[in-house]
Amino acid sequence: MRLVPLFIDASYMERAEEPLTVNTPEIRQPSLENSTMENLKRQKETVFSLVQVKGTWRRKAGQSVKQGIKGRVSAAKIYESTSSSGTTWTVVTPVTFTYTVIQTKNLLDPSNDTLLLGHIRDTQQLEAVHSSTKPLKRFIVMDEVVYNIYGSQVTDYLKARHVLYRILPLPTTEENKSMEMALKILEEVHQFGIDRRNEPIIAIGGGVCLDIVGLAASLYRRRTPYIRVPTTLLSYIDASVGAKTGVNFANCKNKLGTYIAPVAAFLDRSFIQTISRRHISNGLAEMLKMALMKHRGLFELLEAQGQFLLDSKFQSGLVLEDDRINPASVSTRVAIETMLEELAPNLWEDDLDRLVDFGHLISPELEMKVLPALLHGEAVNIDMSYMVYVACEMGLLTEQEKFRIVCCMLGLELPVWHQDCTFALVQKSLCDRLQHSGGLVRMPLPTGLGRAEIFNDTDEGILFRAYKKWCDELSTGSLQ
Amino acid sequence: MRLVPLFIDASYMERAEEPLTVNTPEIRQPSLENSTMENLKRQKETVFSLVQVKGTWRRKAGQSVKQGIKGRVSAAKIYESTSSSGTTWTVVTPVTFTYTVIQTKNLLDPSNDTLLLGHIRDTQQLEAVHSSTKPLKRFIVMDEVVYNIYGSQVTDYLKARHVLYRILPLPTTEENKSMEMALKILEEVHQFGIDRRNEPIIAIGGGVCLDIVGLAASLYRRRTPYIRVPTTLLSYIDASVGAKTGVNFANCKNKLGTYIAPVAAFLDRSFIQTISRRHISNGLAEMLKMALMKHRGLFELLEAQGQFLLDSKFQSGLVLEDDRINPASVSTRVAIETMLEELAPNLWEDDLDRLVDFGHLISPELEMKVLPALLHGEAVNIDMSYMVYVACEMGLLTEQEKFRIVCCMLGLELPVWHQDCTFALVQKSLCDRLQHSGGLVRMPLPTGLGRAEIFNDTDEGILFRAYKKWCDELSTGSLQ
Repeated sequence: MRLVPLFIDASYMERAEEPLTVNTPEIRQPSLENSTMENLKRQKETVFSLVQVKGTWRRKAGQSVKQGIKGRVSAAKIYESTSSSGTTWTVVTPVTFTYTVIQTKNLLDPSNDTLLLGHIRDTQQLEAVHSSTKPLKRFIVMDEVVYNIYGSQVTDYLKARHVLYRILPLPTTEENKSMEMALKILEEVHQFGIDRRNEPIIAIGGGVCLDIVGLAASLYRRRTPYIRVPTTLLSYIDASVGAKTGVNFANCKNKLGTYIAPVAAFLDRSFIQTISRRHISNGLAEMLKMALMKHRGLFELLEAQGQFLLDSKFQSGLVLEDDRINPASVSTRVAIETMLEELAPNLWEDDLDRLVDFGHLISPELEMKVLPALLHGEAVNIDMSYMVYVACEMGLLTEQEKFRIVCCMLGLELPVWHQDCTFALVQKSLCDRLQHSGGLVRMPLPTGLGRAEIFNDTDEGILFRAYKKWCDELSTGSLQ
Repeated sequence: MRLVPLFIDASYMERAEEPLTVNTPEIRQPSLENSTMENLKRQKETVFSLVQVKGTWRRKAGQSVKQGIKGRVSAAKIYESTSSSGTTWTVVTPVTFTYTVIQTKNLLDPSNDTLLLGHIRDTQQLEAVHSSTKPLKRFIVMDEVVYNIYGSQVTDYLKARHVLYRILPLPTTEENKSMEMALKILEEVHQFGIDRRNEPIIAIGGGVCLDIVGLAASLYRRRTPYIRVPTTLLSYIDASVGAKTGVNFANCKNKLGTYIAPVAAFLDRSFIQTISRRHISNGLAEMLKMALMKHRGLFELLEAQGQFLLDSKFQSGLVLEDDRINPASVSTRVAIETMLEELAPNLWEDDLDRLVDFGHLISPELEMKVLPALLHGEAVNIDMSYMVYVACEMGLLTEQEKFRIVCCMLGLELPVWHQDCTFALVQKSLCDRLQHSGGLVRMPLPTGLGRAEIFNDTDEGILFRAYKKWCDELSTGSLQ
């Protein structure tokens, strides 16, 4: 056994392209987008950019690569430092996510391409599909209640388009929202066989269905594209717009999941006509959330048209074909736009200050406590109602504004108070929030109608006085 | 029931900050990093940037926001277009991922902070931890073989540092690499209780252990940080450096998984001393891959020092303390650097042209066929050996270079041929590759020692002649 090596000198390992011991520290340019870069330890480090020539990536010392260099330059950087224990590398790399939300009409009409091709953004790819004679292949998961109503339409559509398909109807209830169901979907997908690049899995149903299928797809081959087709108002304006997937685990809501957006969400308001009035109210709560946080116009629309939206189930009717003036169309559009504004810059929730958390500080605890008495949006509304009292107690809202908001909630047929929402529950929820939000409570509160800010300094006294007033005014049902 | 709404005119929904019907199409700036943007349908679209003022994000029409604007500007963009069916929004948003790979010595010595604090890059956070009296809390998963050797050292370390801990030893073999094991880990994690922000899960073991724990952590609360501590040569230079996690599913290798990098990987070469000689060869195959693709110096080091590295099990000994000249240190460092060069710009494998796929076109099929006869690295080496013959047949390598490479492989005690690697298997593997790589075979081939390119035009004749020559020269064992 030969244990003494040949002598190696440092130059032995040099590459023509890059000497091995480059060690010129550079001052890094902090960027607004990337606080990580700023926070890296300020030690003697070499920064490398990455340039690709003929398929091979090479490090080049320097924050930015010189003008005129040949090759493709990556947005990724590698920081390297050396100590007596060895080398440390830090990789900072942006990954770009793209997804499309498409409002459409007559989604299940065979003359509408959207369901099959709406997710394709590349015109060349679209042309290739159009000119190909190979049949398309799609795996579709439908909530079984939705399947009972729309199953034959979906089947007719797929047959008319000569698609090779498999429809899997599942009871996608909150109780069944588990990894077991996600794995069941995956077994069926695997057996059916799909191309990971261009045969997206389609989910048709409410939020639970979209969340489970999203999780299953994001795990399959480390990411298989999927499409969301929401059939409830809540999932139309909420689950469809974001990137979150998830299932319940160990009796906790959405404890397991990913942040993988669908390749596309196809929104057709006509599905909402088969939803019960209570479930439309449920969706209106999330719409009201966006209105209170960001859009006075939407609030005023809900104030004036809430009953009409409930009565008409978000259907336009013949007299209101014009989408610019039809309240169902305007309200859903603005809800989605305001939601996208908040989600797009924070898709992976790296920023803990989130206005979209309004109504979601106390409600998870309340929802779990009284399950199944309250729907998600109902619990959210009770949380928002209390928070409006907090904002009023802090002088952020006037009494009149508070009154208008509570009246609007009642007009949307949402509960504004609940006996199980005790002050102890409020305290416990905010305590949990503190723990999971990096030591700050990060409480979004309205500072007017359609305006809001994040607060961290609400004291116990204010929270209690607001709670007392909230109970005094709303528990008796005098306003209701 | 009032089914006729109040009349709404368009101005009703305007916000002071932004008129609702802005519709100035802009020409988008194509960016090298983001081919998605370029490929978006060239339809009449409005581009919106996103600006955050006082915690609220607002859209501003325009590709770039005017100089002097107040507030934080996001790198995300929203593209909006309107048709008669409604609105379409496309969100394009870069999410920045950061991870650190740290070489260290004496990782399990209580005076070494790395295991507990090495992942913290923010100096303020580090100071806060140092000045806090609260004990640290860590959940640790160890492969059970590794636990038998290093369990007491890990326990001693955690006790000496007054950590609240739970160690979970598991039989992390290829056969057990399943979602069931990931869920078992998650149940224990949940019961133990960790803070999703600052109590990373630590995995100590080989590649299978690191992959399963990585998947479990990336699912828990949609992303809980985790740390990789590799104990084999293969995982030291391969699994630790990248972002892939995974488990087997439906008899397929790594069919379920995610692309979530660990918050940090801590590399201590001393673990390798307890690995068998065959498993060191196994790791050397992946090192040779990087050498052949990207680094002639590393190839020449393996040629000259391969036997020494095997004999010394990557331990330095007293005479070779200097990391600049010690072959164990130099070879692992270069292997990691070349790997990071290729992975950092393509963390989520959006680009299908990958040099790191060398040795991985035929080997998965072969590995599964003869399981458990070949270790992963051994199957990879057989694949590379054949591909070297293909490169030679195509005139990319000289006979002499081919001979040097095969001799180097034999010096690393790796198999260069296998009777079950039939030409039918080669054809089937390349066919599968075609199907899953967007219609191109994307074959990385050496074009010299330490240089490579991706080829799509290798014809059947060349593949067959290379196969015949490969069998003629290597099956007889005349070279071995």
